[in-house]
Amino acid sequence: MITAKARAVDGPDKTFRAAEINRRDLDSFDVLIEIKYAGICHSDIHTAHGEWGPVNYPLVPGHEIAGIVTDVGPRVTKYKVGDRVGVGCMVDSCGKCENCRKGEEQYCLKGKVDTYAGVDKYGEPTQGGYSTHIVVTEDFVVSIPEKISLDVAAPLLCAGITTYSPLSHWGAGQGKRVAVVGMGGLGHMAVQIAHAMGAEVTVLSQTLGKKEDGLQFGADYYYATSEQETFTKLSGYFDLIINTVSAKIDIDAYFSLLTLDGTLVNVGAPAEPLSLNVMSLIGHRRSFAGSMIGGIRETQEMLDFCAKHNIVPKIEVISADQIDEAYKRVLVSDVKYRFVIDISTM
Amino acid sequence: MITAKARAVDGPDKTFRAAEINRRDLDSFDVLIEIKYAGICHSDIHTAHGEWGPVNYPLVPGHEIAGIVTDVGPRVTKYKVGDRVGVGCMVDSCGKCENCRKGEEQYCLKGKVDTYAGVDKYGEPTQGGYSTHIVVTEDFVVSIPEKISLDVAAPLLCAGITTYSPLSHWGAGQGKRVAVVGMGGLGHMAVQIAHAMGAEVTVLSQTLGKKEDGLQFGADYYYATSEQETFTKLSGYFDLIINTVSAKIDIDAYFSLLTLDGTLVNVGAPAEPLSLNVMSLIGHRRSFAGSMIGGIRETQEMLDFCAKHNIVPKIEVISADQIDEAYKRVLVSDVKYRFVIDISTM
Repeated sequence: MITAKARAVDGPDKTFRAAEINRRDLDSFDVLIEIKYAGICHSDIHTAHGEWGPVNYPLVPGHEIAGIVTDVGPRVTKYKVGDRVGVGCMVDSCGKCENCRKGEEQYCLKGKVDTYAGVDKYGEPTQGGYSTHIVVTEDFVVSIPEKISLDVAAPLLCAGITTYSPLSHWGAGQGKRVAVVGMGGLGHMAVQIAHAMGAEVTVLSQTLGKKEDGLQFGADYYYATSEQETFTKLSGYFDLIINTVSAKIDIDAYFSLLTLDGTLVNVGAPAEPLSLNVMSLIGHRRSFAGSMIGGIRETQEMLDFCAKHNIVPKIEVISADQIDEAYKRVLVSDVKYRFVIDISTM
Repeated sequence: MITAKARAVDGPDKTFRAAEINRRDLDSFDVLIEIKYAGICHSDIHTAHGEWGPVNYPLVPGHEIAGIVTDVGPRVTKYKVGDRVGVGCMVDSCGKCENCRKGEEQYCLKGKVDTYAGVDKYGEPTQGGYSTHIVVTEDFVVSIPEKISLDVAAPLLCAGITTYSPLSHWGAGQGKRVAVVGMGGLGHMAVQIAHAMGAEVTVLSQTLGKKEDGLQFGADYYYATSEQETFTKLSGYFDLIINTVSAKIDIDAYFSLLTLDGTLVNVGAPAEPLSLNVMSLIGHRRSFAGSMIGGIRETQEMLDFCAKHNIVPKIEVISADQIDEAYKRVLVSDVKYRFVIDISTM
């Protein structure tokens, strides 16, 4: 058994505390990773607060993990000690179902194994990246290109792939008009990636507060959704809208911005059901879709794409003692644009 | 001015009465059609009852029109006297916008001109097919293949194209599993068309009451949605679901029947907003889409496809005096599967 230092939370209303957790001894295909940086994702907060269903506390969140390989199991072929690697939102899947065989492990029909708050094939609860070490089967480890430093690599493992995957799947590229709703952790990645793919990119944010940043990230246009004029002006304009906002929005108003055959993809899920007028879809054969992270092969592709196009998240590095404060700041959108925990402070 | 006999309704609660209406003199590109049969669509009822917004009464509904050309304007090239022709849900569009240029006139950015309860380019209210004659610009007239008799041709102009278009657009065919929700006027067309396209077809109907018919129309399987077991058994099974039911249904339950990247297409629109759980879409990158009739080119393609595959609706022919009774029977789903008015009884 390997002992790791971690930060754990004991209940929905509790603050983080220092903890020691066990990581399994390396199995044949396992990789031991010394974690250097872990990003803070809004999902961590939802889960830590028990908002997404019951949680087995104590819980160690974190699914944006960047580190160095320090040991490998006897049959590991993909990684060696010293490799720079990442782990995202899942650490295993059945590997046999139709979706796994397509390389879409995130949609595993048996259910993927979440990096934290999941249960692994040994029947053990999984614990995430707010810790010094993690053991992951090599198939769920990705390689971080030399060009990307580990601190900025971490958020790519969730915020990066969550936006890259739908942009790629729905063909963002030359001649396509893409809107990104929300300029947070996911939004600021979506803007950079869509721009690099060659699409015309528009940010739709509540206010113009982050306009300068948005344009710097590669947005061609930036509009405030608090102004009604935005919706009349951009009516029927976009081929693809990526909605990164998980709060409830007036989704019909956003559908009206889609052109014939346009698609609005939600990558965030509001906790409550969402109400929509079906005529908003029928009127121009529009689609409303959802997308969840990406497969492992696609995650590697995303990392290589980001390296090639010099895409990195804008981050604020914090120490392990600042997690609670960071959570509070995420909840009031006071972050540009992702908190990353320096695990050496653990 | 051409005078036509018609059946009109004078208000949301009124019954039909015999009326005389004027049809414009033929303009250069106009075709005068002597209507032989007109289908009764649920939309006629919604509109006649004022449920889809204010209506300029008196109203003559009817947008499933089959007849014979009896005169043509001086510059008409596509039709001649004696031709067997049809008119569907629209009689004009701007012809210049992006969507019209693509042949998707039903999504005209300036707004298509509806066959009834619309306003034409002359500023006149349009009146539909419950009448002996209609004048339509040749570009919005389609040719009815010899193999299809006029009585069964009529419902193809709305029920046929409304289901053919999404089945074609979303690629129903060999190796695809298609579900049709609802076995009414639209549903019984969708089953035949999807089957002819080569897809495996399943009907999802409230009860098994029409199972025998469904199998005869070409369905491979037939399930009752009143049985909860249906939803567990078919979980994640379908590539495409065509929902022909415009009443409010538990849409999340139907999403759960879609496979990875599956699409549920609504061709009917519930009057009230619909509530859905976005996680139902995110879970397997599913899409919820809407589709409205089809373009003129595609309507002709549908007619030729139906002729080739011997597809016709199952109809009950009624006289003009039976319209009110037919409306009542449609509202309680007591029709197999489309009422068609014999216009010679007008």
